[in-house]
Amino acid sequence: MAAKNKPIAFDALFLGPKSENAKHFQEIMQDVVSEHIYWRRDFHPEDKPIISYNEKNQQGFKDSEQKMQEVIGEVTSKLKVTSMPWHSPRYLGHMNAEVLMPSMLAYIAAMLYNPNNVAYEASTATSPMELEAGMDFARLMGYDQDKAWGHICTDGSIANLEAIWYARNLKSIPFAVKEVQPSLVEGMSDWQLSNMSVPDILDLADKVKDVWDEIRDHSCRGKGVNLKQLGKWIVPQTKHYSWVKAVDVMGIGLDNVIEIQVDKNYRMDIQVLKETIQQLADQQIPVMGVVGVIGSTEEGAIDSMDQIIELRREFEKQNVSFYVHADAAYGGYARSIFLDENYDFIPYEALKERLHSEGIINKDTIDWPSKNVYNAFHAMSETNSITIDPHKMGYVPYSAGGIVVSDKRMLDAISFFAAYVFEKGAECPSLLGSYILEGSKAGATAAAVWAAHRVLPLNIEGYGALIGASVEGAQLFYKHILATRELDIHGTTVLIEPLVKPDFNMVDFAFNIKGNTDLEAMNELNLAIYNKSSYVNGPVLLNDFITSHTTFSYDDYKDAPAEMASRLGIPKEQWDAIHSVRVMRACVLTPYFTKDDVAEYYWINYIESMKRKLAEILAK
Amino acid sequence: MAAKNKPIAFDALFLGPKSENAKHFQEIMQDVVSEHIYWRRDFHPEDKPIISYNEKNQQGFKDSEQKMQEVIGEVTSKLKVTSMPWHSPRYLGHMNAEVLMPSMLAYIAAMLYNPNNVAYEASTATSPMELEAGMDFARLMGYDQDKAWGHICTDGSIANLEAIWYARNLKSIPFAVKEVQPSLVEGMSDWQLSNMSVPDILDLADKVKDVWDEIRDHSCRGKGVNLKQLGKWIVPQTKHYSWVKAVDVMGIGLDNVIEIQVDKNYRMDIQVLKETIQQLADQQIPVMGVVGVIGSTEEGAIDSMDQIIELRREFEKQNVSFYVHADAAYGGYARSIFLDENYDFIPYEALKERLHSEGIINKDTIDWPSKNVYNAFHAMSETNSITIDPHKMGYVPYSAGGIVVSDKRMLDAISFFAAYVFEKGAECPSLLGSYILEGSKAGATAAAVWAAHRVLPLNIEGYGALIGASVEGAQLFYKHILATRELDIHGTTVLIEPLVKPDFNMVDFAFNIKGNTDLEAMNELNLAIYNKSSYVNGPVLLNDFITSHTTFSYDDYKDAPAEMASRLGIPKEQWDAIHSVRVMRACVLTPYFTKDDVAEYYWINYIESMKRKLAEILAK
Repeated sequence: MAAKNKPIAFDALFLGPKSENAKHFQEIMQDVVSEHIYWRRDFHPEDKPIISYNEKNQQGFKDSEQKMQEVIGEVTSKLKVTSMPWHSPRYLGHMNAEVLMPSMLAYIAAMLYNPNNVAYEASTATSPMELEAGMDFARLMGYDQDKAWGHICTDGSIANLEAIWYARNLKSIPFAVKEVQPSLVEGMSDWQLSNMSVPDILDLADKVKDVWDEIRDHSCRGKGVNLKQLGKWIVPQTKHYSWVKAVDVMGIGLDNVIEIQVDKNYRMDIQVLKETIQQLADQQIPVMGVVGVIGSTEEGAIDSMDQIIELRREFEKQNVSFYVHADAAYGGYARSIFLDENYDFIPYEALKERLHSEGIINKDTIDWPSKNVYNAFHAMSETNSITIDPHKMGYVPYSAGGIVVSDKRMLDAISFFAAYVFEKGAECPSLLGSYILEGSKAGATAAAVWAAHRVLPLNIEGYGALIGASVEGAQLFYKHILATRELDIHGTTVLIEPLVKPDFNMVDFAFNIKGNTDLEAMNELNLAIYNKSSYVNGPVLLNDFITSHTTFSYDDYKDAPAEMASRLGIPKEQWDAIHSVRVMRACVLTPYFTKDDVAEYYWINYIESMKRKLAEILAK
Repeated sequence: MAAKNKPIAFDALFLGPKSENAKHFQEIMQDVVSEHIYWRRDFHPEDKPIISYNEKNQQGFKDSEQKMQEVIGEVTSKLKVTSMPWHSPRYLGHMNAEVLMPSMLAYIAAMLYNPNNVAYEASTATSPMELEAGMDFARLMGYDQDKAWGHICTDGSIANLEAIWYARNLKSIPFAVKEVQPSLVEGMSDWQLSNMSVPDILDLADKVKDVWDEIRDHSCRGKGVNLKQLGKWIVPQTKHYSWVKAVDVMGIGLDNVIEIQVDKNYRMDIQVLKETIQQLADQQIPVMGVVGVIGSTEEGAIDSMDQIIELRREFEKQNVSFYVHADAAYGGYARSIFLDENYDFIPYEALKERLHSEGIINKDTIDWPSKNVYNAFHAMSETNSITIDPHKMGYVPYSAGGIVVSDKRMLDAISFFAAYVFEKGAECPSLLGSYILEGSKAGATAAAVWAAHRVLPLNIEGYGALIGASVEGAQLFYKHILATRELDIHGTTVLIEPLVKPDFNMVDFAFNIKGNTDLEAMNELNLAIYNKSSYVNGPVLLNDFITSHTTFSYDDYKDAPAEMASRLGIPKEQWDAIHSVRVMRACVLTPYFTKDDVAEYYWINYIESMKRKLAEILAK
C-alpha cells in the first residue's frame, strides 16, 4: 500500500485485523483514563476521599468488587463466543468493518465525563462538537455553510423520521398562513398552497415570524395531520423499511406512500417516477416529498439524484413542487471521494485521473465511478435534507446517525420552542433537545464523530481515500466473481453470478448448480450456503468466511431479478412461478481488500471456503 | 456507612468522587481490552498481520498516528476544561451523578466488538442482554413476566414517542376490525369502539390474526390519523416537553392535548383529571390516553398513579376507557426500593421498618416514603406501558432509555412486519428494529444496562439501597434548608425556602432578601445565584458548588408557586402581576450525602458557598 502513496495512512487509525496497533491503542486509552482519574482528584483538592481504605477492606466491599468482576467476565465471555469478526477481511456481510481507533478513544474519553448533548449546560465540550460535526456534514454535501444545519442522532431510522417530520410540517405552513394572515397568500388555491417549493415556504414563513406561534398552532403541529393537504410520500422500492415505520409514526398512513419500481440497475426508475408525479398532478393530488437512496440497503444502488432534482425543476414549471430527501445513511460519507482539499466537487475526468494517480482506485482494472453515480453524488447538494450514518461508512462505533438540512430556517417547523433559528447570538442552542427528535443523548457519540472527522477530513485526502479503498475492494471482488463464474465441486459445476455491477461497495451474487432450472432448488442452495457462512452454523469464530444474504421478490422488485436468475440458468417461467430469489450480499467495507497480496489471499480463501461448503451441501 | 450494614456496598461500584477505585477500574479495563486484542488475533491464527512493521515505520503512518494522538488530546482537553463535576457531591443540579463502573466497563468491552442490536445476526451476545434488561424492567414494574416485553432505546423522549405510538395505533384497531370483519363488533357504536379497554382491543385483535395485514392496512398505520376516532391525549402540566414533540410527530396535533393542572404538591390534580374526562365523555369525545409522571422533571413529583388507575376503573363502569402510560423516565428505578428479594412489593409498615433497620433511610430524621408516594409506585403495575431511563436513576452512562409494555401483543400494533409476537420459537427476534421505533443501535448500551442489573439487582438489596441513599441525601438536604431558613450576609438577611417536601430526590428552593416584596427582584437574585453556580460563571472546575435552576410560570402551574413565594415574603398581588418564579433545582443523585460526616461537610460547604456568592451579588 505504501507504494500507492495514499494521502492518509488510514492503516494507522484502526486497531487492525490482527490488533497490529494494539500497543498504541492501549497507550492512549490508559492515558485518557488517567487524565480523567486525576481530573476528578484535582477538583477541589481539599475535599477528602469519601470511600475510605477502611471501607475498602471490608468483606462487603470486596464481595461487591468481586461481583462486578464476575459480571464483566460474563459480558466479555458472551461477546467472545458469538461476536462477528468485523475486523477481519473474512467478514464480508453487513455494512460492518472494524471502526476507527480515534472514535473509540474519543468515546471512552467522553463517556468518563458522561456529557448529555440534550442541553449545552450538560455538555459544554461535546455540544459544540456535535454542531461542528453537523457542519462537516453540510460541507460534505455541498450545502451552503451559512444556511445549513446538521446534528447527530441514534441512527438512520431516526434521521429519516426527522426528515419526514420536516417535510410534513413545512407542507402545512402555507395553509396555516392562509388561516392566520390570508392576505399573504391571497388568490392562491389549495392546490397552489400544496405546491409551494421549500424555499418559497421558508420565505413565506419569514414574513409571519411575529405571529409564528399562531402559525404553528394552525399548522400540522397544532391541528394534526390533514392528509388531503399533505399528499403522497414517494420512495423507491429499494427503500429501507424505516420509511414504512416513519410514515406510520408520522400519522400519514401507508396508503399515502408510493413505491417506485427500480430499473435494471436497481436504481429508482426515473421514468416511472415522472409518470407517477404527472398522474398525481393531473388529479391534483400533491406530493409531499420524494426520497432518493444513496446506497440502497440490499444492493448499494445509487439512485439518480441528479434526475430527481431535474424532474423537480421541470415540474416546478407547471407549479408542482415537493420536498426532496436523500437517504444517504449508507452512501453519504462516500461523497468525500469526490471532493478536493478545498471541498470542491472534482470534475469527472480529473477525479478519475486523481483516483488513479493517488492509488485510491486502480484505473487499470477498475472503472469507477460511472457517470451516473458521479452525477448522483454531485446533485446531493440540491436536496432539502440528507440522512448520513457515521456508524456505517464513517467507521464510527454504534450508535451514530446523522441528518443535515440545507436551510436551517426549516427548524422552525419542528422545534418545540418557537426557535427563530436558535437563541440570538448563541453559538450553541441551550436546549438542543428542543430542535430535534431525540432528547438526552450521549455527548460521547459527538466526540467520536468529531474526532473521526478531525483525523480524517471529509474529502479525497481523508475519508475519500479510505472509502475509495473499500470501493476498490468491492469492485475487485466483483471482478473475481466475473472471472470465476464456474466452480468444480467434485465433478459438479456450480455457477456463480453477480446481481449487477455494483454502484458502490456492496456485491450481491448467487450460486446455482449448472443445469438446474428449478428456482426453489437454487434458493435452497443459496440459503444452505448462507447458513454455513453465518451464526446459524454455530460460533462464527470457528467459521472461515462470514457473509449475509437477502431475498429479492417480485412484490418489491418486479421483474428486475429475473435477469440474474436467467444468467444462472433459471428460465423466465420459473421466475414467474416463484417470484423470489435469494442472493448472497457482501458489503466490502474493509479497506484491506486492495493490497495485492492481501486481496489475493482472501479471495483464494473465500473461494476455497465456498468450495468446501458447497461440497458439504452437495454431499447431502 | 459500614455501620449501616447496607445490603450491597455500592461504593465499590463507582470510580469514586476522588477516583478512590481507580486502580480496580484500570485493571479491569485493561483486561477487557486485552481480551479483545487477543480475540482478534485468535480468529484464524493462520492469517498474517495485514499492517506490517515496515508500513508502521514509514513517515506517513507515523504522521497519522501523531494526528490521532493530537485529536484525542484535543478531545480530553476540551472535556477537562468545561465538563460538569458530576462525580462530586459539590454538584447538585441536573439528574446526574457519576455512573456505575460495571456499566462503563461493559460498554467499553462491547464497543470493541461493536454489536448492533437492530438484528440478532449482528448482536448475538447483546441482543439477548437487551431483552433480558427489558424483562428486568417488567419485573421491576410488577408486570406479568409471561406477558410483558421491554427494550432499551436512546432516551425517555423516544420511549414516550413509542408509548403514544402504541396508544394511537391500538385505538384505531376496533375501527379497522369494523371495516374488515364487521360481524365481530356488530352493534357497537363509534363511541363504544373508541372506548374499548386495551385488553379488550388485544383480545379482539387475537380474533383477526388471520387477516391481520388487512386490519393493519385499515388501522391508523394504513389510513393515517383520524382525529375524531382517537380523541385526546391527557398529560399533567408537569409533563416533560418531549410529550409535546411526541404529539406533533405522531400527527395528532397539539390541539388534541389536554394539560391537567397540578395540586399543591405539584402532582397532577386528580379531581381536575376526573372532571375533564367526564366533560369529554359527556360530549362523546374519546380519551386516547392519560400519562402519569413518576418523578417530574422540574420537581421530582410523583403523580398519584393509583388514583389514575382507580379513575379508569370507575370510568370503565360507564364504558369509558383509555390507555395509561407512566412516564417514569426519572423515577422508574426507584421502584426497586419497594421490592424485596423476591421482587414482591413490601407492605408499607414493613418497608419503613426495613428501610430503617437496614440503614437505607434513617427513620429518626426522615419520613419517607409518604403513603401517597408508596401507593403511586405500587399502582405502576396496572399501567399499559412505562418509560424508564437507565441513564437517570440507573446510573448508567448516556444514552440509555427504555420502555416496557404490559402485554407484548401490543407489538402487533406498531411492528413493521406482521409480528404475531416474534417469530415462532425464536428467543430473540431476528430483526428487533422492526418492532421498535429505532433501527441500528449500540449493543454496548444493552451490555451496560445488563451489567448494571446483574451487579445491582432491581430490589431493595441492590438499586433500592443505592437510590434509597440518594433519596435520604435529598431529604437531608431539604431538612437542612428547613433548619436554616435565614442567612446573615454581612447584616442583610437572606431567606431560603423549599418549594415543597420532595416526593423523591429532587429539592427545589429559592432565596429572597428578607423584606423584599418585589418578585422580579427576587427572580433576579436567584438567577444571579444560579449564574454563579453554573457554567455561566466560567469553567465549573473552579466553582465550589454547581446547581441547576428552573422557572415556574402561571401558564404551566397556575397558582401553585404562589405559596412558596408567599413564604419568602412575596405578596399574592406580586405573583398575580409577574406570574413567574425562578427556583434553584438540586437533584441529589449522589449516594454520598448520607454518610454523617460527608453530608455535614458538604452541607457546610454548600451554605458557605452560597453565602460567599450572595455576598458578591449583594455587594454590587
